[in-house]
Amino acid sequence: MSSEQADEETLHARAPFQVERVGAFIDAVAAIAMTLLILPLMESVGEVAGAGEDTLHWVGQHDQQLVSFVVSFVLIAMFWMIHHRMFRAVEAVTSPLMWILVGWLATIVWLPVATAISGAMDADDPWAKVLYVGSMIATSLFSLAIRLYLWRHPELHHAPSGSLNTGVAVDIAMAVLFAIALTLGLLIPRVGYYAMFVMLLT
Amino acid sequence: MSSEQADEETLHARAPFQVERVGAFIDAVAAIAMTLLILPLMESVGEVAGAGEDTLHWVGQHDQQLVSFVVSFVLIAMFWMIHHRMFRAVEAVTSPLMWILVGWLATIVWLPVATAISGAMDADDPWAKVLYVGSMIATSLFSLAIRLYLWRHPELHHAPSGSLNTGVAVDIAMAVLFAIALTLGLLIPRVGYYAMFVMLLT
Amino acid sequence: MSSEQADEETLHARAPFQVERVGAFIDAVAAIAMTLLILPLMESVGEVAGAGEDTLHWVGQHDQQLVSFVVSFVLIAMFWMIHHRMFRAVEAVTSPLMWILVGWLATIVWLPVATAISGAMDADDPWAKVLYVGSMIATSLFSLAIRLYLWRHPELHHAPSGSLNTGVAVDIAMAVLFAIALTLGLLIPRVGYYAMFVMLLT
Amino acid sequence: MSSEQADEETLHARAPFQVERVGAFIDAVAAIAMTLLILPLMESVGEVAGAGEDTLHWVGQHDQQLVSFVVSFVLIAMFWMIHHRMFRAVEAVTSPLMWILVGWLATIVWLPVATAISGAMDADDPWAKVLYVGSMIATSLFSLAIRLYLWRHPELHHAPSGSLNTGVAVDIAMAVLFAIALTLGLLIPRVGYYAMFVMLLT
Repeated sequence: MSSEQADEETLHARAPFQVERVGAFIDAVAAIAMTLLILPLMESVGEVAGAGEDTLHWVGQHDQQLVSFVVSFVLIAMFWMIHHRMFRAVEAVTSPLMWILVGWLATIVWLPVATAISGAMDADDPWAKVLYVGSMIATSLFSLAIRLYLWRHPELHHAPSGSLNTGVAVDIAMAVLFAIALTLGLLIPRVGYYAMFVMLLT
Repeated sequence: MSSEQADEETLHARAPFQVERVGAFIDAVAAIAMTLLILPLMESVGEVAGAGEDTLHWVGQHDQQLVSFVVSFVLIAMFWMIHHRMFRAVEAVTSPLMWILVGWLATIVWLPVATAISGAMDADDPWAKVLYVGSMIATSLFSLAIRLYLWRHPELHHAPSGSLNTGVAVDIAMAVLFAIALTLGLLIPRVGYYAMFVMLLT
Repeated sequence: MSSEQADEETLHARAPFQVERVGAFIDAVAAIAMTLLILPLMESVGEVAGAGEDTLHWVGQHDQQLVSFVVSFVLIAMFWMIHHRMFRAVEAVTSPLMWILVGWLATIVWLPVATAISGAMDADDPWAKVLYVGSMIATSLFSLAIRLYLWRHPELHHAPSGSLNTGVAVDIAMAVLFAIALTLGLLIPRVGYYAMFVMLLT
Repeated sequence: MSSEQADEETLHARAPFQVERVGAFIDAVAAIAMTLLILPLMESVGEVAGAGEDTLHWVGQHDQQLVSFVVSFVLIAMFWMIHHRMFRAVEAVTSPLMWILVGWLATIVWLPVATAISGAMDADDPWAKVLYVGSMIATSLFSLAIRLYLWRHPELHHAPSGSLNTGVAVDIAMAVLFAIALTLGLLIPRVGYYAMFVMLLT
């Protein structure tokens, strides 16, 4: 057996996951989380209809929920795109990498809950903002952890180091910007969710 | 490096998404949205059973919800088919194209909410119709935007220009037909949802 | 252009769907419908806990729902397997075939609603049985329609005619057996759902 | 026809499922079950907001639900990884194997219900623990059944017998550890769910 073949067998034993199926699994979870964002809206429709009120009234009462839905939908889409561009260069998935990916997924699955909270609670409830923006900081940090793991294990991927460096910078910038948005949102109530939008523009 | 190779590398940098995974992601979101259409029906079963009523009574009380479910199921299937026939010719996905696709997805994910509204509210509630048919107009316009983007970036796909032109015509015709259906539905209450069916036949 | 190439181009124009993506879409819808079967159980957990009752009480009160869940789970799995064995021979999907597949999907997506009804209503409610077993007859008939369509369009698949004939016989047998189960269930109340199990054994 | 070809045709007739589509189907169900774990949290948000309470209050009242969510999320991820590492060696799926896989899937789909029960009921409700930990024992036993089936049918896969033996040992160890956790949880109330974590560490 040549040394190259031996290397490949070792890699296979260390990286026992099929990259395509792991990618498809992550896509499925992100797609479901993105779609479950509508559940609080669907539930509230039943309640308003039961109370004999009309559509215009429902829209007026749920403007905060509607804004949360759009912001979270755009954010999950953005996180998925960032993940997708990184993951396409991955060629092998080890168990530690898989667990970091599961952590990333947990923050994505948590986002519909945080969205429901931020859509249901008073606009000046500080803990609603901490849970909502905090889960985005967590997503950015898990994304950073994935990239640092790849950076230390160059045999698992074919991403040029330049693109990894850029990605690390993007992840850190995201986490910092979300932290600033959270601070602003806590200091100046009723500004928080618009600050999210501002961030996306920059 | 030959000029062709350089072109390919530039395209890769500009179009950093894997077409197969983007397609699978879109399919997953559409499949989930299509299935979540049953949620208002499932919820109402629990309520009717709690009130001690029987199945026939439930069907009688939820005829509007049942019609909404069937119409929306057929419409999402139709939108997905239109998208599918277009997307199979796509070979590379750029960031702007990805965001237009996310917009298209948002209108698909919104449809179960609009369906719940149109199934729960009074049949002559004008805003229920605006939200329901309006979301279909939005889907058609995003579909049009995707096609116009592809038309301006021939390097991203292999669709013959004839098929793109036909597609643009279909998208515009769909948006106009939905707008006519909405106008009819607003002018002549209780006609709206049947007008949808008429449209599908034509 | 040779006659064979011309044939292939005509087939491509008539069958504009990618078989892999259509198959993946059908799988996704079936997987979601199968999983949504748990929703009535999850909802009832919240209600029982709110009323201060314990787990044993919940199980005792929801035995009918638990049986419905298991039966429907097994049935969707069975329908999916029948579909899967047929669809693997399909090589091209035309628009009419796609619409028959959407009809098949609609009966699968409807099954969680019918399951919720049969789990929530009185065991001797005849219409609950009609909706539940009727939706299975509908699935079998759509499966039959898909097979007859393939039988009339041999250019779309590579299934040997022997296997198609067997499949047609299975679909008809299923529809007849479900109709017998429904008749038994209507004539002898409280026998209906066990008759389903008997059918699966035969 | 050579003897090898005949063997292959027999295998194809006995194993009529496409391994890729079966794998994707299993992934989709696991991904949906993992995401539906958030439903009890989302529902409770609406209730607390309706009662005019704030986010901190919600977190305080739902600490048990939050822990259940995290534990179950990690457990489904772990079960999926164990399944994934085994299934990647599978080359053909027979009908009996498919039904064992459906049984495995049923235990995964049941887990969100068991999680909702363990999150909603009193911490010293013994039957909540039996249903929750019992469903994990069931998952481990189905995993064991899959592996034993593969062990008896070496023509269906290319896993070395060493890796199968290791897997059998892991499945048995898991079932035993969960049984110990359940016994501990029943003997010493309020210890149960932390015992789960201890198991994961070992």
